[in-house]
Amino acid sequence: MVGVSGLLEIVGLGPGAPEHRTEAAAASVRGADTVIGYGPYLDYCADLLSDGQTVVRWGMGQEPERARDAVDRAAAGERVALISTGDPGVYGMAARTLALAAELPPDRRPDVQLMPGVTAALIAAARLGAPLSDDFAVVSLSDLHLEWETIERRLEALAASGIALCLYNPRSRSRTWQLGRVLELLRRHRGDDTPVGIVTDATREDERVTRATLATVDEQQVSMRTVLIVAGESAVSSGDWIVAQR
Amino acid sequence: MVGVSGLLEIVGLGPGAPEHRTEAAAASVRGADTVIGYGPYLDYCADLLSDGQTVVRWGMGQEPERARDAVDRAAAGERVALISTGDPGVYGMAARTLALAAELPPDRRPDVQLMPGVTAALIAAARLGAPLSDDFAVVSLSDLHLEWETIERRLEALAASGIALCLYNPRSRSRTWQLGRVLELLRRHRGDDTPVGIVTDATREDERVTRATLATVDEQQVSMRTVLIVAGESAVSSGDWIVAQR
Repeated sequence: MVGVSGLLEIVGLGPGAPEHRTEAAAASVRGADTVIGYGPYLDYCADLLSDGQTVVRWGMGQEPERARDAVDRAAAGERVALISTGDPGVYGMAARTLALAAELPPDRRPDVQLMPGVTAALIAAARLGAPLSDDFAVVSLSDLHLEWETIERRLEALAASGIALCLYNPRSRSRTWQLGRVLELLRRHRGDDTPVGIVTDATREDERVTRATLATVDEQQVSMRTVLIVAGESAVSSGDWIVAQR
Repeated sequence: MVGVSGLLEIVGLGPGAPEHRTEAAAASVRGADTVIGYGPYLDYCADLLSDGQTVVRWGMGQEPERARDAVDRAAAGERVALISTGDPGVYGMAARTLALAAELPPDRRPDVQLMPGVTAALIAAARLGAPLSDDFAVVSLSDLHLEWETIERRLEALAASGIALCLYNPRSRSRTWQLGRVLELLRRHRGDDTPVGIVTDATREDERVTRATLATVDEQQVSMRTVLIVAGESAVSSGDWIVAQR
């Protein structure tokens, strides 16, 4: 009976500031026996935690261990909130955690619920105007779990499609050449003067929003916490805003 | 002085149920002098409205009038909340409203803020597992404001890219043939057995979630309040879930 009473909620906290979190996400964290997450992300929901809860802070890169811990605890009957920033289903913890839960026999599988959140593309767009008001794609430039050739193949097709592009994980300390290659690829399909919005740490203390073009992006400004939005074919500059027309 | 003190907040209410709304969106509606929106969407934030407020209910298809009303009132010094469901920057009210505000001379332009929300693709994905955990695109099938040839051209490129697709506005009373054409187009690029999730009215009273493939979608199930998610090349079925792997 213990196993089937467990609950695993995979929660998106949104971009960071508590006011851009949903009430459902907040309730999941508040109501959990155990809250599990990457250490710095737990700080984004510190206002929701209380003394009776177990809080498990994991380090960077320990996503498989975090997912396993969450599934095991829920299977043992605990009510668990596993947190991501943004939306847990957009490069967050949902996929690997669902895959682990699905491996359990049905009588040991906890109830699993997903709590969506405002993903980075949406808050970045809100800072820039309405660049995603026509069709758009969300693409990660991280080649940690996908070969670079596949990423380039996808980007070639997307660049040709003409829709806006949101680039996640554009650059990190160990991935420094990828963004330059992508900007070069995009310039082959779109004009050098295509507007690009660069948004880092949206809603957080060090939020930075800058505008550039495909020819003028300053790669040194871009980190793993940056989202770049490359305007689509229907975008116009409207005052300080990038506005896609549909 | 009256003009410059106005505030226009363009607010995303999320999918419908109050618990999937952000606190910032709720605060914008609560704090407004005037709340403007399509009538049925105002019902999704009825719990936030109070007696001192002016509530302006507009009919379907009156988006230009709604945007003009919101900009004019804010320019006259009111604090205005203009609401959309989902995210206002994803086929919502943001683009046309920013374009109107940008036309005003700077000394008459009110402060404009955008409050993001959980867009339909994210709640649909949460109901299906994690189909958007690898790259994805969001595409509207509505040809009210864009010629159908452009929509098909984009879809050809996107289908070839291999990423997951979220189809908004797939079908309405007056647009009945487009979805069939799109499914046929997608079948030419991807297997007949590609998983498709069909989510209508997520978080609302009549929520319906069904699973199909590109060959078995029942078009009669699909309405203007449906989002279809077509799995990408990296997706697998994991128990009842569609999970994209990255």
